[in-house]
Amino acid sequence: MTTLVEIGQQAQAAATELALLKTTDKNAALQTMATELIAEEAAILAANELDLTVAETNGVRPAMLDRLKLDHERLVGMANGLQQVMQLPDPIGQAISGWQTENGLQIENVRVPLGVIGMIYEARPNVTVDAAGLTLKSGNAVILRGGKEAIKTNLALAGALQTGLRKAGLTANAVQLIADTSHETAQQLMQLTDYVDVLIPRGSSKFINFVVHNATVPVIETGAGNCHIYVDQNADLSMAREIIINAKTQRPSVCNAMEKLVVHEKVAAEFLPMIATALAPYHVELRGDAAACAILPEIVPATAEDWGTEYDDYIMAIKVVPDLNAAITHINRYNTHHSEAIITKDYAASQEFQRRINAAVVYTNASTRFTDGFEFGFGAEIGISTQKLHARGPMGLTALTSNQYHVYGNGQIRQ
Amino acid sequence: MTTLVEIGQQAQAAATELALLKTTDKNAALQTMATELIAEEAAILAANELDLTVAETNGVRPAMLDRLKLDHERLVGMANGLQQVMQLPDPIGQAISGWQTENGLQIENVRVPLGVIGMIYEARPNVTVDAAGLTLKSGNAVILRGGKEAIKTNLALAGALQTGLRKAGLTANAVQLIADTSHETAQQLMQLTDYVDVLIPRGSSKFINFVVHNATVPVIETGAGNCHIYVDQNADLSMAREIIINAKTQRPSVCNAMEKLVVHEKVAAEFLPMIATALAPYHVELRGDAAACAILPEIVPATAEDWGTEYDDYIMAIKVVPDLNAAITHINRYNTHHSEAIITKDYAASQEFQRRINAAVVYTNASTRFTDGFEFGFGAEIGISTQKLHARGPMGLTALTSNQYHVYGNGQIRQ
Repeated sequence: MTTLVEIGQQAQAAATELALLKTTDKNAALQTMATELIAEEAAILAANELDLTVAETNGVRPAMLDRLKLDHERLVGMANGLQQVMQLPDPIGQAISGWQTENGLQIENVRVPLGVIGMIYEARPNVTVDAAGLTLKSGNAVILRGGKEAIKTNLALAGALQTGLRKAGLTANAVQLIADTSHETAQQLMQLTDYVDVLIPRGSSKFINFVVHNATVPVIETGAGNCHIYVDQNADLSMAREIIINAKTQRPSVCNAMEKLVVHEKVAAEFLPMIATALAPYHVELRGDAAACAILPEIVPATAEDWGTEYDDYIMAIKVVPDLNAAITHINRYNTHHSEAIITKDYAASQEFQRRINAAVVYTNASTRFTDGFEFGFGAEIGISTQKLHARGPMGLTALTSNQYHVYGNGQIRQ
Repeated sequence: MTTLVEIGQQAQAAATELALLKTTDKNAALQTMATELIAEEAAILAANELDLTVAETNGVRPAMLDRLKLDHERLVGMANGLQQVMQLPDPIGQAISGWQTENGLQIENVRVPLGVIGMIYEARPNVTVDAAGLTLKSGNAVILRGGKEAIKTNLALAGALQTGLRKAGLTANAVQLIADTSHETAQQLMQLTDYVDVLIPRGSSKFINFVVHNATVPVIETGAGNCHIYVDQNADLSMAREIIINAKTQRPSVCNAMEKLVVHEKVAAEFLPMIATALAPYHVELRGDAAACAILPEIVPATAEDWGTEYDDYIMAIKVVPDLNAAITHINRYNTHHSEAIITKDYAASQEFQRRINAAVVYTNASTRFTDGFEFGFGAEIGISTQKLHARGPMGLTALTSNQYHVYGNGQIRQ
C-alpha cells in the first residue's frame, strides 16, 4: 500500500506539473473527467450500493444516508459541476498588482496555485468530485481523505477521475484518494507539513474543531454556522417574518440556515406570536429565554447550551434583548463567525450592526441563506471560510491560490 | 499576575474598539506613542543596560548583543518608525470588491482588521515597537511575547507605548507584552485559539519551525532565507559578480542575503575563480561540491548539510549543475521559499526560472536583498512570509487585514 508520505511526494510532484498547465489543458481534463464519471456509472452506483448497505446495517440515520446516496441524476449533477468549472475564468497567472521601483526594478505580483491541498471530509461523496474539479482548475494537486461510510463510492469516483486525467494526458496524481480511512491516516495527513500546503476540512463543527486542534498543516476552517437574525425595534415585521421562514425552513441542515432569533424587547410581544404562527406549519420547535417564554408560554425554555449550538434541524431558539448593543454582544459571544442578519428600517442600526458583528457575511434585510459561492456569483465553492486568515466567506477559485512576486532587473544591487 | 487567558480577553475587547477607530484617532495615538518613547528614553536605556549586563554575563555572542543594544539614535529611529506608519494609508474600510446580484442584493467586500495578533520573537527589541505601530494602524490588538534576553527593555518600551495609548484616549490593552518569558507562556500563547487570530513568529528558522509545529493558532511563517543565485550559461558574468558581492556581503546576517551559488558547468571554470577573487576581500568562506572544488582546490568541500543551511554569515556554498533544470530542481529541493535569483541574458531561461521556482520572490538579474517591505514600496514591514497561505513575501499593512462581506437587501429570500 502506498504510504502517506509517498502520496504526499506524488502530490507535490504533480503540483509542479499542474502549476504550469495551460487553461485549455486543464479544461480538457475536466471534460474527460466528467465523461468518465458517466461512463463508469454502473460501477460507481454499485459501489455506492455497497456503502449504503453497510451504513444501513450500522444504523446510520436517514439524513446521513440521503447525503451518502448516489443515483443517475446526482452523478450527472457531479459531471455537470465539472463542466461548469470549465467555464470559470482560470485564476492562475492573473496579475494582482505590478509596479516599477525607483531604481528600475519591475515587480509583478501574480496569482499562483497553493500547491497541494488536503481535503478531509465526512460522508458526502460529492465533495470528492467538486474538490477535484476546483483544485485542478486552480492548478493544485489534491489529497482526498473522505469518511469510511463513503469509501467504496469515493474509490470508484476517484478511480473514474484518475482515468479521466490520464486520458487527457495529465498525471493521475493530481487527484489522490487515501484508501485507508483509519483515524491514523487522518492524523498523519494533518501533520504532513512537508508536502501539504493547506488543509480544508468539511463536516460538522465538532469535526472541524478536531482538525483545527490537531493539524500542524495550515487549516482553513469552514462551515460551522450558528447563524442569528436580529429583529430590531424598527423592523418591518412582515419582512422579518418572510426572511425568517426562508432562513430557518428552506433547508435547515445547511450551514447558512438560521439557528437563533434575537428580538428587541419593544417588538417581542407583537412579533413572537407572529413568527410562532408562521413557523407552525413547518413544525419548528421553538426554545426561548425567560422573556420569550413569558410571551409564548407553550415553547421550551432554552438552556445555556442552546445559545452556542448549531441545530441543523427544525429547531430555533429565541433571545429577547433590551437594545441593539445587547443583540450585538450576544451574537458576537455565541456565533461561529459565519452569517448574521439584522432586520431594520433604521439606517444607524444597520450600520452599527454591519460594522460591529464579527462574521464572514453580515446582512441587512436579507436571508442568511445567500452565503454561498453560487449565490455570490463565484460560479463554484470549495467551502465557506469562517476564519479571518487567507480567505473569509464563500471561497471560489481564487481562495485556492497564492501569489508570487516576479522581479525583473538589469543588474540592480541594494545600496 | 495577569493570566494569559486574561491577556487574551483584554486583547479581544481592545480589538473590538480598535476596529471601529477613525484613521485620525489611530494616527494621534501613534504620535503620542512616539513622543512617549523619547520622553522615557532614560528609563528605557537604563532597562536596556540591565539586559545587556545579564546577556554579557551569560556569554551571549557579540552579534546578538548588538541586536539587543539600544542607544539614543536607535530609540529615535523607533519613534520615527511610528511616525512613518502614520503616513501610510489606512487599509481598514477599503473596498476590495463590490457588486449587485441579479435579485438586487448589494454585496460589498471590505477590508477589516484580523483582530488579535500574537507576535513571538527573540532578542530584537525593535520588533516590540514596529509590531505595535503596524498592528495599531491596521486596527488590531497585539500580544507581544519577546525573548528573555530583552525582557527589561521590552517592558520599558511597552510601558511607554501603553502610556502613549492612554494619553491618546485609547485602551492600553491594544498593546500588551507578556512579562513572563518562560517557555510555558510561549506554549500557551500558541494554543490560545479562543482569543488570538494569528501568530507571527520572528527569529531563527529553528525557532519559527518550533512555533509552526506547536501552535494551534494559525501561523504566518516568516523569514527563514536559504537564498540561491543561479548563474546561467548565458549570464553576464560581470553583472553576476556584482550582484553576488551585494547579495552575499552587504548584510550577511539577514534573511534575504544570499547563501548559495548555483552555477552552470559551462561557465563554472571561468566564473568561479572570478567570484572567489571578488569575495576574497570580504573574507567569505567558500564551500563547494566536487566540481567546484576541482576548479577552486583551496575551498572547503560542502557536506550534505550545507545545502539546506542558512548561514547568516560570511559563508557561501557553491553547486555546479549541468543545466537549468538541475538548477531549478536543486533550489526547489533545498530552499526555504524566500528569494531566489537567476542571472541570465536568455529570455527563455529567465521565464522558466521565474515560473518553476517555488519561492515568495523570484528575480532575474537583480540582488535577492531587495525582498523587503521598504524596498518594495510598502512603507513598512511586519515580516516576510515564506508560506503560501494568506500572505506571501514582504508583508505590509494589508497583510494584517481580513475581509468581511456586507450584504444590503430589501427583503430578499432564497428561492
